[in-house]
Amino acid sequence: VTSQFDQDTEISPDGDVTITGRWDGISGIPNGGYQLAICLRALARLMPYPDPVVVSGFFLRPGKLGPARVSASLLRAGRRMAFGEANLVQDGKETVRATAAFTTLGDHDEPLFLGATRPLLPPPDDCVGAPPGAEGLPAIARQVDLRTAEPPGWMRGEPGGNPNMEFWLRFADGRDADLICLPLIVDAAPPAVLDLGALSTTVELTVCLRAKPVPGWLACRATTRCVASGYHEEDFEIWDSAGTLVAQSRQLCMIVE
Amino acid sequence: VTSQFDQDTEISPDGDVTITGRWDGISGIPNGGYQLAICLRALARLMPYPDPVVVSGFFLRPGKLGPARVSASLLRAGRRMAFGEANLVQDGKETVRATAAFTTLGDHDEPLFLGATRPLLPPPDDCVGAPPGAEGLPAIARQVDLRTAEPPGWMRGEPGGNPNMEFWLRFADGRDADLICLPLIVDAAPPAVLDLGALSTTVELTVCLRAKPVPGWLACRATTRCVASGYHEEDFEIWDSAGTLVAQSRQLCMIVE
Repeated sequence: VTSQFDQDTEISPDGDVTITGRWDGISGIPNGGYQLAICLRALARLMPYPDPVVVSGFFLRPGKLGPARVSASLLRAGRRMAFGEANLVQDGKETVRATAAFTTLGDHDEPLFLGATRPLLPPPDDCVGAPPGAEGLPAIARQVDLRTAEPPGWMRGEPGGNPNMEFWLRFADGRDADLICLPLIVDAAPPAVLDLGALSTTVELTVCLRAKPVPGWLACRATTRCVASGYHEEDFEIWDSAGTLVAQSRQLCMIVE
Repeated sequence: VTSQFDQDTEISPDGDVTITGRWDGISGIPNGGYQLAICLRALARLMPYPDPVVVSGFFLRPGKLGPARVSASLLRAGRRMAFGEANLVQDGKETVRATAAFTTLGDHDEPLFLGATRPLLPPPDDCVGAPPGAEGLPAIARQVDLRTAEPPGWMRGEPGGNPNMEFWLRFADGRDADLICLPLIVDAAPPAVLDLGALSTTVELTVCLRAKPVPGWLACRATTRCVASGYHEEDFEIWDSAGTLVAQSRQLCMIVE
């Protein structure tokens, strides 16, 4: 059985891909991380090293449900790393411009230095997800299982003014995470600024991939530090079930309302 | 009088630029932020909006002293933002691939939310810079005035194992900062991992430009949270003299030693 993520990011040999409506965010358009994961998957097919370590995507236009074409090219292959570019195109117009570096990552080495700590959360079974049949949830909320220690204020209609969230996350169909899907995972949770009552759209998303995740739940932390002049950033950390920091991302978002 | 930064990032109408040795880092090659600032300056000439809000640069090959050519192209102009790409080329080979988004930023609006604090430092006159005649400093250390409350451990030959640093920074010739030079400023301090005794080279650098800096000293914070599998990230914040957060950057670096 192919997972929903793998089905919805499948690319034909010619670069054809179908953007499905299953990963739409709150604003009703396809999630940026979903589109970036498609770009990364296209790059992985041609890069001479197996593991992405950093990918940056610029969202030039909103994506939409339907056919798309993704192209990828090698920019440079060096002795330890290689660089590539991918372009996602719909209706003849580029929607996402992605650039990435690939390398060969080790197997879960102990960090030389770690100055961050994994989110402290009760076990997933003691946390709460979206209530069954909850209204107003975007499509993507059905594709991931997100669990928090307490229901966030915005979900109860009471934004608390604190754009920080810690939670468990995994694909709803049980697919375990790998490096290629992490750009989607870092963008799959409700934006932290919801707790300020704000809605926004991603301008740019950079994901640093720090280690290959082992199977299981992912402990995540989303943090926004500055909302000003119509923009905000959101940082996202993912820790795998072995307690390893596997991804650090930052996105710059434009506030739309 | 033209500042050293403006001289060393001057681009001819045809895109010719000279990479000088004045911004070499510890490893003896031109600073990545210096090269990224050249790309951003090339983009600023053609973008339909005045202010960069986010720029990402991938360092495909080490830059070197001498002639270079920078080209820039518009990827997309929308109603509130525009996107562009720049390429820095030396000896016919691309060294830096940069992508950026431009907009029109407001004038120092109050943030809607601020969950970060400016570094707490004694006034610049009560802080210490590199001792006059200090040996072993890279060229870039002469172009900026960097002042810390206490001399960092690595400068005394005693790395303290703490890759975090807060300090004042400005151009040594008194040029005030603007958005275009901030990609250089975020990369102009000694890497935080020096305090771990590590040397590294930048793979990718993303800079979010959050507000136009007012004249004066910049309060900066450099933080590395995870050094693992041969890579580390470094985050950098810049606060201007009015206490506004003007830049947030992250770079992914490959450890070379």
